Amino acid sequence: MNRKLRMGMVGGGRGAFIGQIHRMAANLDGKIELIAGAFSSSPEKSKLSGEDFFLDPSRVYGSYQEMATVEAAREDGIDFVSIVVQNHLHFDVAKTFLEAGINVICDKPLALNIEQGKELQELVKKGDVIFALTHNYTGYPMVKEAKRMVADGELGRILKIVAEYPQGYAVGDVEGEGTSKIANWRADPKIAGSSNCIGDIGTHAHNLVKYITDLEIEELAAELTAFIPGRELDDDGNCLVRFEGGVKGIIYASQISNGDENNLNIRVYGTKASLEWHQEEPNDLLVKFANAPRETYRRGNDYLGAAAQANSRTPFAHPEGFIEAFANVYLAAAAAISDKIDGNEPPEGGYDYPTVDDGVAGMAFIKACVDSSKNNAAWTKLEQ
Amino acid sequence: MNRKLRMGMVGGGRGAFIGQIHRMAANLDGKIELIAGAFSSSPEKSKLSGEDFFLDPSRVYGSYQEMATVEAAREDGIDFVSIVVQNHLHFDVAKTFLEAGINVICDKPLALNIEQGKELQELVKKGDVIFALTHNYTGYPMVKEAKRMVADGELGRILKIVAEYPQGYAVGDVEGEGTSKIANWRADPKIAGSSNCIGDIGTHAHNLVKYITDLEIEELAAELTAFIPGRELDDDGNCLVRFEGGVKGIIYASQISNGDENNLNIRVYGTKASLEWHQEEPNDLLVKFANAPRETYRRGNDYLGAAAQANSRTPFAHPEGFIEAFANVYLAAAAAISDKIDGNEPPEGGYDYPTVDDGVAGMAFIKACVDSSKNNAAWTKLEQ
Amino acid sequence: MNRKLRMGMVGGGRGAFIGQIHRMAANLDGKIELIAGAFSSSPEKSKLSGEDFFLDPSRVYGSYQEMATVEAAREDGIDFVSIVVQNHLHFDVAKTFLEAGINVICDKPLALNIEQGKELQELVKKGDVIFALTHNYTGYPMVKEAKRMVADGELGRILKIVAEYPQGYAVGDVEGEGTSKIANWRADPKIAGSSNCIGDIGTHAHNLVKYITDLEIEELAAELTAFIPGRELDDDGNCLVRFEGGVKGIIYASQISNGDENNLNIRVYGTKASLEWHQEEPNDLLVKFANAPRETYRRGNDYLGAAAQANSRTPFAHPEGFIEAFANVYLAAAAAISDKIDGNEPPEGGYDYPTVDDGVAGMAFIKACVDSSKNNAAWTKLEQ
Amino acid sequence: MNRKLRMGMVGGGRGAFIGQIHRMAANLDGKIELIAGAFSSSPEKSKLSGEDFFLDPSRVYGSYQEMATVEAAREDGIDFVSIVVQNHLHFDVAKTFLEAGINVICDKPLALNIEQGKELQELVKKGDVIFALTHNYTGYPMVKEAKRMVADGELGRILKIVAEYPQGYAVGDVEGEGTSKIANWRADPKIAGSSNCIGDIGTHAHNLVKYITDLEIEELAAELTAFIPGRELDDDGNCLVRFEGGVKGIIYASQISNGDENNLNIRVYGTKASLEWHQEEPNDLLVKFANAPRETYRRGNDYLGAAAQANSRTPFAHPEGFIEAFANVYLAAAAAISDKIDGNEPPEGGYDYPTVDDGVAGMAFIKACVDSSKNNAAWTKLEQ
Repeated sequence: MNRKLRMGMVGGGRGAFIGQIHRMAANLDGKIELIAGAFSSSPEKSKLSGEDFFLDPSRVYGSYQEMATVEAAREDGIDFVSIVVQNHLHFDVAKTFLEAGINVICDKPLALNIEQGKELQELVKKGDVIFALTHNYTGYPMVKEAKRMVADGELGRILKIVAEYPQGYAVGDVEGEGTSKIANWRADPKIAGSSNCIGDIGTHAHNLVKYITDLEIEELAAELTAFIPGRELDDDGNCLVRFEGGVKGIIYASQISNGDENNLNIRVYGTKASLEWHQEEPNDLLVKFANAPRETYRRGNDYLGAAAQANSRTPFAHPEGFIEAFANVYLAAAAAISDKIDGNEPPEGGYDYPTVDDGVAGMAFIKACVDSSKNNAAWTKLEQ
Repeated sequence: MNRKLRMGMVGGGRGAFIGQIHRMAANLDGKIELIAGAFSSSPEKSKLSGEDFFLDPSRVYGSYQEMATVEAAREDGIDFVSIVVQNHLHFDVAKTFLEAGINVICDKPLALNIEQGKELQELVKKGDVIFALTHNYTGYPMVKEAKRMVADGELGRILKIVAEYPQGYAVGDVEGEGTSKIANWRADPKIAGSSNCIGDIGTHAHNLVKYITDLEIEELAAELTAFIPGRELDDDGNCLVRFEGGVKGIIYASQISNGDENNLNIRVYGTKASLEWHQEEPNDLLVKFANAPRETYRRGNDYLGAAAQANSRTPFAHPEGFIEAFANVYLAAAAAISDKIDGNEPPEGGYDYPTVDDGVAGMAFIKACVDSSKNNAAWTKLEQ
Repeated sequence: MNRKLRMGMVGGGRGAFIGQIHRMAANLDGKIELIAGAFSSSPEKSKLSGEDFFLDPSRVYGSYQEMATVEAAREDGIDFVSIVVQNHLHFDVAKTFLEAGINVICDKPLALNIEQGKELQELVKKGDVIFALTHNYTGYPMVKEAKRMVADGELGRILKIVAEYPQGYAVGDVEGEGTSKIANWRADPKIAGSSNCIGDIGTHAHNLVKYITDLEIEELAAELTAFIPGRELDDDGNCLVRFEGGVKGIIYASQISNGDENNLNIRVYGTKASLEWHQEEPNDLLVKFANAPRETYRRGNDYLGAAAQANSRTPFAHPEGFIEAFANVYLAAAAAISDKIDGNEPPEGGYDYPTVDDGVAGMAFIKACVDSSKNNAAWTKLEQ
Repeated sequence: MNRKLRMGMVGGGRGAFIGQIHRMAANLDGKIELIAGAFSSSPEKSKLSGEDFFLDPSRVYGSYQEMATVEAAREDGIDFVSIVVQNHLHFDVAKTFLEAGINVICDKPLALNIEQGKELQELVKKGDVIFALTHNYTGYPMVKEAKRMVADGELGRILKIVAEYPQGYAVGDVEGEGTSKIANWRADPKIAGSSNCIGDIGTHAHNLVKYITDLEIEELAAELTAFIPGRELDDDGNCLVRFEGGVKGIIYASQISNGDENNLNIRVYGTKASLEWHQEEPNDLLVKFANAPRETYRRGNDYLGAAAQANSRTPFAHPEGFIEAFANVYLAAAAAISDKIDGNEPPEGGYDYPTVDDGVAGMAFIKACVDSSKNNAAWTKLEQ
């Protein structure tokens, strides 16, 4: 590739949090250039956002449909689009660009339900396009080290997994004194889908478990709760989990856990050792053997595996964070897109970004949680 | 009281871990003196242990029955007995001393099952004797501070509780390469009762939740697992919990969580604030408010409540630990016994030690876990 | 500013660590574009680096002198240059661009000695150009919060300051079994100046103290040591410090502190409260009052001051790190450059980036340390 | 020994903090019995304290001189005396008991000055009595593990040592709004000797360094400060240190470090590895190798050395603290006293308690600090 990749964006105009994150992730390594966008359903707002980002006005569109059509036709059209609209629009926008043959990096969740997810999965397969889903926590170098340790058998046979994701930002709303931090659209089933908390952050925990251990959930028993009065959708959810091979576990997520901020943690216990990773201190990975001193693996060191090293940008103890992890997803997807453009073969072992299949698996997890909870936490199998 | 309290002990001879802990807890404050014992079912071993502890040989007994009879008849007989025998003998020994009118400090669990527990409960009520159960984790000053904060409403209305108690010491046995660290008697239902892991340490987590929050569990859904091949009893257990008043929670315990040592933790989330306490760093209590800096309450400071202060022995940051917490249970029970002997009224608010009622509640918790698990984690109510 | 700022770079070709950091810091926010460079003293290597960064070949130069001349003359010339060459070349390169009237962002240290520093200081004053020095640790949001707390008097009167900066990467060289991680140029007085360890990282600690407390050092007593055999320059240095107003302190730095990575820490003690910040966990600021619970201020929260908030990019507990802090220096310098170009007035309170004056102060600190150490740690005043 | 050791106490009556600590340390293991005391210079107060501890009134004395005479003459007299009076009386009381041929466990500091220290040293040598000084921090199991690692060469050659001991309890007095927490006697040279802060806690840091590394200080440069107005003695002190063999270091102590509680820390850096121990989390020992994961050694594990294991009472992660460490000093001294009484040979390697020689070394450290500081932090050799 002798030029920067050309990126378009749908959504993510002025004031949108996640669009800004995607742009920084794309900018960081100097290999991607934002050149087009439909930043808002309001053409005027889209135009203003385009100015914020110093875009050529002719590449700022009033609708994503127009953008897909025009950019697909240009010789110097975008190489991929980043989709950062609200959840319920992911499906329509993704479908439009996939059908136009344009590669996609899509914010999670993939779609509103598993049926939509499978339709996108089908389009990706048929269309030979790159589709990356930004389950960004898998981008952390020490998460990649955790995955490597499990894959290399350093933990022995896995016995138990505990993944937790408590946040507290919505707790104020429980007594009505809050500031409605769970935006209305998140609480509206038409926009958010069948779940709020499990759908929004529980899926991150689920995805992280799958990425690190490569274990499938067979069935789960879930208790979802809406603590905020008047809301239809859950703001807290706890699951007992049975994985394949007799592995047991707990996955839970919460938005009413007062004072917790973004407290995503995972512990994986094996017959030889266990590991523990905390998103809020992402540069460390705690490794525990029976009858041996505890070990802390630290990002940036030579003793780490290849993936952890390749996904680091700074020397040890020059902390990396959320944006760098996010950028690793972009880098991996960008590598796939560049290779496709250049006609290169994929590297041995493939590319390391979350795919549409991960998105469908997330939809299946959400559905099982919701169904189980409606059925008084009965054991519920995950749809394949 | 113008003399030290006279203590007897049943069990706890040479090499017994928990007996040694009880003796140190009793010794620490110089208010209790060990003067009699039936330290082993072997009279010879009992005698040798008596020599270890510098006892008058005439007060070292070959059987606990003899000890109860003789000591009850002496004018200078023991003021109370500490029972530190194996779990399945708690009931018989406790019954014997209660019937002899002797006060009891008994190691947990109370008994093998809820029926035994209720029989002891009845004896305690009828006999007007002091009965303390060493759920020692409630003896930590910062646990008492946590209880105070909840009682004073500083957390607001409680929404969610997460209590976890992973240990890893038995994991080696899972693949048969271990050293059978879960002693045979713990895995034998005749001796250990219906549960190993939940019975041994899950009850500590349950008791801690109850002590801090004063909330009753209404029903639970439990998944107990025996990872160690050939064992009948659980070495891991995970529960979804419904407390009274719509409070939700998770309680879990494990003995196969590799590298975890004694990792008892509790988090209590309320509408105003949450708290977090870790047994392995017991001098700190983490308090989290939404939109405010995190606070760490530290043992030994003047800003703490009365109970936290009264149960501290050293200035701040001169760490206290497990034995001091255990000794606080002894001190509280000793106060009750002294007051009874001296004919003093109990203090306002009563004494702060775990009672036979806590023991019965623990039996009910274990039974519900076992029953639920046998029934594929069906929701199961706790016996009152 | 209706376009991205145009950035040039001197040094920082393929494989250079610090150049890559500068480019990521510049890229992150999408407001700066690298368009020109003299990346190496070898024209061929410079050209290859230009290709790596997708630059127009006509803007890739074989010498920095040529680059200064040509870019200064172009209407679309660079708005500023980033200088990331070896320490001993900072002076010549900076002087060249300052004399060409081009704004400068220069890696630290400013120069080889205080005389060079003052010459650059003079040029900056005369030339009305922006000059920023990348003392990047001041870019961390929680460092800015610390500064605010001190300035607002929340700590009371400052009594004592302890700043430490141990690293261990060079320890292997002490016994000759290392990999000479302290590059030859760092140990060569002609290239590194009069100090290695104090010059390279001690100055960071010094700068951080000054930034947070705004206190000048009056005199210091320093003991510098070269533990690595055969090296002329220090790899470890410890200083007793007397600040203005009777404030006392310790500043130390080390490259032979085995296993420490980038362990820059500062503690500031005042009559009302103290604070503590650890570079390796940069999102937290520990605040300690006497007789009150400890507080942890966490990046991304609304309760923080304006500067801490304005310099954050992600919500709380979505960790930010070294690159984001570095980028904050770039953003502040970019704001100054944009305002100058647009003819805007500086904001009230000015811009928040390290200046040439900070660089001169650093030179004075190094000189005092070296002079004191040569004089058996005699108290030595800092040159003004 | 077929009985408990008989202990007497001088000082430590009602309300005295350190006397209570000594009694708990003596009680803990059930091998020592308090049977006599001169708890106060007021006979009436001494009598009341004797009642608190349930002593035979005939063994409660109105003066320590009487106690020494009477107890020395009794066949069942005390086996040793614990001296817990104010610092300036240590010398007189210790001398009295040593001359009476009674073993001594004395609180630190040994005496008011090095001359007194040497006189006691002489008495101990001549009298063939046991003399233990309660530098209790050496009693922590993980401190013993640190000592073992250094002795076994696991750190390689030692290069640098940093020991710090900040407390903040006296900071309120700096502005006159405090509660005079530094008691008047501590600030009175006639009672406290030539130093307050260095004498009271700096010596603990010094002793810890010596215990772990077995390195002698050759000379030091010290800056002592009295921040509290109107006080003659230091409440803060910072030292540059030169150890034998070219080892460098920093030792500092403070009582005006706001919000710090009992923050004694030591870091020892060697050519192969470094270690780090924090008194406030005493059950952990951090071990750092270059280019390897960080290790945390945890008390109670089988992988620890013999001394760490022998000085533990509870299983791993059942935290031990300050009192248990203190009790380890008592246990070691009690073993020496018992062996002397029983006519046993000392064990190979001797007993592990701080001696009168450690006390004299502490006096020399204090003197050097005070002399250096008076001499504007000039390098000052330690008296041998």
